[in-house]
Amino acid sequence: MEIKVVHQILEWNEDCSDEIKSELKEKKVCLVNVMGSPGAGKTSIITSIIKTMSEKFRIGVIEGDIAGQIDAERMQKLGVPVVQLNTDGACHIEAMAIQNMLPDFDLNSLDVIFVENIGNLVCPAEFNIGEAFRIALLSIPEGDDKVEKYPLMFQTTDALILNKYDMIEYFDFDEERVVRNAKDINPDIDIFRVSNKTGFGLDAFTTWLGNKIEEKINA
Amino acid sequence: MEIKVVHQILEWNEDCSDEIKSELKEKKVCLVNVMGSPGAGKTSIITSIIKTMSEKFRIGVIEGDIAGQIDAERMQKLGVPVVQLNTDGACHIEAMAIQNMLPDFDLNSLDVIFVENIGNLVCPAEFNIGEAFRIALLSIPEGDDKVEKYPLMFQTTDALILNKYDMIEYFDFDEERVVRNAKDINPDIDIFRVSNKTGFGLDAFTTWLGNKIEEKINA
Repeated sequence: MEIKVVHQILEWNEDCSDEIKSELKEKKVCLVNVMGSPGAGKTSIITSIIKTMSEKFRIGVIEGDIAGQIDAERMQKLGVPVVQLNTDGACHIEAMAIQNMLPDFDLNSLDVIFVENIGNLVCPAEFNIGEAFRIALLSIPEGDDKVEKYPLMFQTTDALILNKYDMIEYFDFDEERVVRNAKDINPDIDIFRVSNKTGFGLDAFTTWLGNKIEEKINA
Repeated sequence: MEIKVVHQILEWNEDCSDEIKSELKEKKVCLVNVMGSPGAGKTSIITSIIKTMSEKFRIGVIEGDIAGQIDAERMQKLGVPVVQLNTDGACHIEAMAIQNMLPDFDLNSLDVIFVENIGNLVCPAEFNIGEAFRIALLSIPEGDDKVEKYPLMFQTTDALILNKYDMIEYFDFDEERVVRNAKDINPDIDIFRVSNKTGFGLDAFTTWLGNKIEEKINA
């Protein structure tokens, strides 16, 4: 019963996602889908991206949350256009929601929109939301078995950030296991070791990100 | 569209959940639904429970995972009956799945079955699975804003374990914020500070758990 239902939603979702892609391609705006568990550091990474990249790119943010607007308030202080999406209980963002929100942005004055998806390693991976590419976060405290247990997330992402990397000495985390598992299911994945707290690895990641955004908006 | 669908599933799910409750009440078996984010420490806590409580209670485990059987293999080494439930992509366990699995256990020789739900702070909270009570884990590295962002999980649980408590000095985690937010939406919640790694707080939690199980199987 449930499988049939999800299939219906997914087909409808794909249509919306394709429409968003066409619209954004025309406007030369790149949508980036940022995903990861609750507490993996999605908001903090996006905050760092805004701080270091907003001279080069005109950035907007869609903040997805089940409820509340804690993260959107953090973003707004950085002076970028932010729209909060409350899913009212739903565990993922769907393309229709993004499509409905695009008119809230002046697309002619943006290069990139980061969508912070709901904190969840499962459902968000199933739903394309018109993104040009995906970034998945896995924080060290979550453990090194997550790629095996939640494969779709890591199979469908363009980049994997191993976040809170400064904590690796305190946790029993086999980094090679994660890298091996991720490459097995996603040979082209780019993997970055980052500590958003200390700044470690942020340069390498934002360099990759800048190239990726340029490649997409000039495609 | 989606809201209607979830509603249909939920009604059907409630019927199954009630049937499981009746069957387990008759057999004097207590089902415990253990939930939390990926990497919050669900498997480790259940492992500790088995090690410290299996002289007093006859324990079985249902291991829920999207894919694989890593955790079930860990449990089996402890000598308790374990059944692995693979949801094949679904982000939560439904009551029907539990109902189909109960015949795999000899219910006459069990006091309690722990169900390790899928690592997810959202959807599992919406689905009753015939449980006598719920335990939610929040690990310190996940951050102190999670009760506000994922309220249903913390509103519907009987106990909240603040796990990886030994890490609190390394993270900017406002414990009072979490306690205040949890009590606001769930005044009867019991909150335990636990480090499964060091053993801190495990005695207090397992004492509470033992009393709760006895209360339910003698009800």
